[in-house]
Amino acid sequence: MGKILRIDMSDLSHKWEDTPAKYKDLAGRAFTSKVVREEVDPTCHPLRENNKFVISPGLLAGTLAPSSGRLSVGAKSPLTGGIKESSAGGLTATRLARIDVPGIIIEGAPSKDEWYSIYIGKEKCEIKKTNDYAGMGLYDLIGKIWKDTGAKPGIIGSGIAGQRLLVGAGVFGNNIENSDPGRYAGRGGLGAVLGSKRIVAIISDDAGGERPKPKDVDKFENGRKALREALDTHPVTGVLNDDKGEPFGGLKNYGTNVLQNILSEAGGLPTKGFSTGRFDAAAKISGEAVHELIDKTKEKFGDKAEGKYAHACHPGCVMSCSNVVPYEDTGKLHVSPLEYETAWALGANLDISSLHDVAELNRICNDIGLDTIEAGNTIAMLMEGGLVEYGDGPGAIAALKEAYDAKSAMGKLVCSGTLLAGKALGVTRIPVVKGQALPAYDPRPIRGIGVTYATTPMGADHTAGYTIAAEILGIKGTVTDPRALDKAELSKAFQSTTAYIDFSGYCLFIAFAILDNDDGMKGMTDTVDAFLGKSVDIGEMGTSILKDERDFNKLAGFTKNDDRLPEFFRTEPLPPHNVTFDVTDEELDAVFKDL
Amino acid sequence: MGKILRIDMSDLSHKWEDTPAKYKDLAGRAFTSKVVREEVDPTCHPLRENNKFVISPGLLAGTLAPSSGRLSVGAKSPLTGGIKESSAGGLTATRLARIDVPGIIIEGAPSKDEWYSIYIGKEKCEIKKTNDYAGMGLYDLIGKIWKDTGAKPGIIGSGIAGQRLLVGAGVFGNNIENSDPGRYAGRGGLGAVLGSKRIVAIISDDAGGERPKPKDVDKFENGRKALREALDTHPVTGVLNDDKGEPFGGLKNYGTNVLQNILSEAGGLPTKGFSTGRFDAAAKISGEAVHELIDKTKEKFGDKAEGKYAHACHPGCVMSCSNVVPYEDTGKLHVSPLEYETAWALGANLDISSLHDVAELNRICNDIGLDTIEAGNTIAMLMEGGLVEYGDGPGAIAALKEAYDAKSAMGKLVCSGTLLAGKALGVTRIPVVKGQALPAYDPRPIRGIGVTYATTPMGADHTAGYTIAAEILGIKGTVTDPRALDKAELSKAFQSTTAYIDFSGYCLFIAFAILDNDDGMKGMTDTVDAFLGKSVDIGEMGTSILKDERDFNKLAGFTKNDDRLPEFFRTEPLPPHNVTFDVTDEELDAVFKDL
Repeated sequence: MGKILRIDMSDLSHKWEDTPAKYKDLAGRAFTSKVVREEVDPTCHPLRENNKFVISPGLLAGTLAPSSGRLSVGAKSPLTGGIKESSAGGLTATRLARIDVPGIIIEGAPSKDEWYSIYIGKEKCEIKKTNDYAGMGLYDLIGKIWKDTGAKPGIIGSGIAGQRLLVGAGVFGNNIENSDPGRYAGRGGLGAVLGSKRIVAIISDDAGGERPKPKDVDKFENGRKALREALDTHPVTGVLNDDKGEPFGGLKNYGTNVLQNILSEAGGLPTKGFSTGRFDAAAKISGEAVHELIDKTKEKFGDKAEGKYAHACHPGCVMSCSNVVPYEDTGKLHVSPLEYETAWALGANLDISSLHDVAELNRICNDIGLDTIEAGNTIAMLMEGGLVEYGDGPGAIAALKEAYDAKSAMGKLVCSGTLLAGKALGVTRIPVVKGQALPAYDPRPIRGIGVTYATTPMGADHTAGYTIAAEILGIKGTVTDPRALDKAELSKAFQSTTAYIDFSGYCLFIAFAILDNDDGMKGMTDTVDAFLGKSVDIGEMGTSILKDERDFNKLAGFTKNDDRLPEFFRTEPLPPHNVTFDVTDEELDAVFKDL
Repeated sequence: MGKILRIDMSDLSHKWEDTPAKYKDLAGRAFTSKVVREEVDPTCHPLRENNKFVISPGLLAGTLAPSSGRLSVGAKSPLTGGIKESSAGGLTATRLARIDVPGIIIEGAPSKDEWYSIYIGKEKCEIKKTNDYAGMGLYDLIGKIWKDTGAKPGIIGSGIAGQRLLVGAGVFGNNIENSDPGRYAGRGGLGAVLGSKRIVAIISDDAGGERPKPKDVDKFENGRKALREALDTHPVTGVLNDDKGEPFGGLKNYGTNVLQNILSEAGGLPTKGFSTGRFDAAAKISGEAVHELIDKTKEKFGDKAEGKYAHACHPGCVMSCSNVVPYEDTGKLHVSPLEYETAWALGANLDISSLHDVAELNRICNDIGLDTIEAGNTIAMLMEGGLVEYGDGPGAIAALKEAYDAKSAMGKLVCSGTLLAGKALGVTRIPVVKGQALPAYDPRPIRGIGVTYATTPMGADHTAGYTIAAEILGIKGTVTDPRALDKAELSKAFQSTTAYIDFSGYCLFIAFAILDNDDGMKGMTDTVDAFLGKSVDIGEMGTSILKDERDFNKLAGFTKNDDRLPEFFRTEPLPPHNVTFDVTDEELDAVFKDL
């Protein structure tokens, strides 16, 4: 196993450390959360010198295991005040894995008013002054780094929102196929933690590196093939066309945004600031609409059309859920990708039905360095507070563009996250848990996801325990009643399994296939076990990660009160089902009663 | 004892209730904190229907006891998320006391988009629709109410900041002598709680009322005379001129703002956003400077000059610490009063040395309905965040005036309190405890007040346990070393005694005299005991109030972590003494270890 890279921004020094026993065989979220738990004072100010920013490729990153190249970043979150792990695709995880860097720990903060970038290669680390990178839009920045380095390295970093320490900031990463900052470890304001360490970009080059080797090659090979088979044959994660040649298979044709119509139909698509669960114009901003737009531009512009149904977010992904949305009038790339969460946050959530405006808002968020879920909810607060009208796409775009102006109060607000903006505007319907904005599933008609939002140590986060798989999409043909109130066990199981997956490096979306296919499930665990040469229990690993995270939060001052949804979810019924969130506090507290 | 008035804003109903045993003999802060503890769900949203707004005159309000007409208001605070009691002078306490209303509990919230005012008289309560009062500047509003009612009633209420649910909002009250909204129960954002109940003004008329009668008249008379004597003869609270006719006596000549030079000299005046403890221009905005300005305008404009060294904040106050600051060029009233806290918050704290600009900022805060301590610290955040320059008075005034524009993001921020504005601007030096901004004493060189800031259930609040009396001004000629670190006992004693005083209706400033004069101290307790016809132990009453408040906060989710100062006070030394806040966490936790 390689050495951990520890960087001290206080004196711009670095060292390579043998992995201590406490971090051994950990990777991804298991590594980042363990380091944050062990090394970061839970009471520290998240944007001052005592916080640490931790990076770790998932365990199997860089191997031939399918869709296993996810990257975890972690820190104390300036958005929630608790621990945070955020995950992304992109190039960095595989780059770091191939040069055998299992983790990077960035601590301290420089005293001077300079900006830095960190260059990491095989047994090499340089911290360079890059004041010219600071303040750039991220589309330009990535292009400039490509030019400056003469290569296409993995890049993660902070945009102007993070550099200004604004807590709506995500950590951007670069796409594989183009220079777009389309890969975000978006949540929890971790871009601002990088900004507080005065880091613009962390650039990783795998020259001279090689593919990581599993301990048990045969078992690994069999495992990855079984998983691959499960992914390729599942209607969500696999196949592109049916036997008549028609589009078939969710992600490859419609991306994650296939969910837009499904959730609206289910009455669980939070629309117009969580005031109704159905969006009349859902179809217009859906994955199907993107597909149609791509077809239209292909027809019109032929080979010059840049729209794509599907591409991979990281090397080796076989699901390819990322689209490329073209401009209708030129066929050129507008934004890459437009995910369900984003199309919801900047579309249905704002009562905006123009696909162009949604894509444009997404493009600007990417350029500024903003988490789109947080940004969409923040703009909804501007709308609740009367500064922008619901449904006003150009108004929302203008408000978001204010962020380029360092002196604009509106620009600051729009980058500061939902809770701050909502409170600053006198809004009392602020959809956050632990300070983090809710994603694209209303918890009133779909209670399990509400239990996850309330209880995950991360703040409201669908990816922390995606019960939607059971409650809306179904597992092995069976749908769990979304309105049932006994969801503690369901959420706990999903949260625990998710933590394991976030350790493995696999994309969470493999869950669609492995929950339906036992061979696929075994393929997942076999690859992990074979890689390490020892058996890792899903539940034990997941629980251990969650315990570190919950313990950190407790020491940071979190109580049961923080494991609750905002009051209005209990008092305002959501049309069309006209239900409130009725899960008891006891049920919420049952999720982690044994931790 | 009179009946409690309970108002339900959900259906605009009211009822008069016999005082239940649990509230018997309680008044002022003892009443408001008990009601909030008993009746408000600590986890409720403070700006939605489940919060309650509680009003209670201090026990001795309306009697002949000197300086005993303070009013308490209480609720769950939207600024801190914890319990809040805030106190003010003005007319309302004595008005309510004379018509025998010991407490008002306002609950619920109306569903319609209308604004209301509440008219209270002897055995009378009317809730009137007053949409024309909403959105008015408070100078105009008070004048209009005088005109509409044909009288000069007691008025408290919310200004536009509170009506917009912005948490920098205080509860305004009217002055005795003019139509200025100069009496603020400023802290904790309680103006926004009134706004959430859609209440502009609560108007109390004591026609037909009478002076409350003590149970033991003789004891009361002797007690109040002893206290009066102590107040009149103490150099802080009494005398105006010495035997040579020169100005002498702190409050009557210079108001509370006599402290500006004293604290700067002591190196404990937080200057330029808590970056130094000494303000070179302190003298220019000091009480002495106001005195001089008054003299100058008296000389120039004679009888037309409206400046005053001293007037009473409530009927029966003998200390008269309130000044009236005139415009230099006309002699007319500019602001009434300009307190030390305000002159600091809007002056030294912002590096503003123009007395005119400070007075103007104060006048605008009063008009909008803002707590000046919170507003001053909020403007400091605008300065830290680069939206306004330190020292730029006109810039600060322009920023504050943005608040009149309901669509201005800057206007919203400036009314939203220090924590929200600071975070929204990426500031990491935010001087708040429990979300409430620090007052005018830097805790680094004066550690006892830091212990009070950290541990009081109120959020940073000097009035909760004013150890400055011991640490700077001295008690019976002895000054407690401000730099000593064992301040838990001192702070606890001050907090407990303060809670008792806040129950009694006495102004906290009597403490200067009674701490130096045992007869005065006995006068205070004798009047309370004589009024109730039973003995009330200072420590027991104080502790009981604090326990209610701490219990509420605990249930609201507060932990030890909330009893801490911000990190930068421990890491950034304050010139000129170059000290940090070094009190241990154990010492902080010792303050309330027995509660």
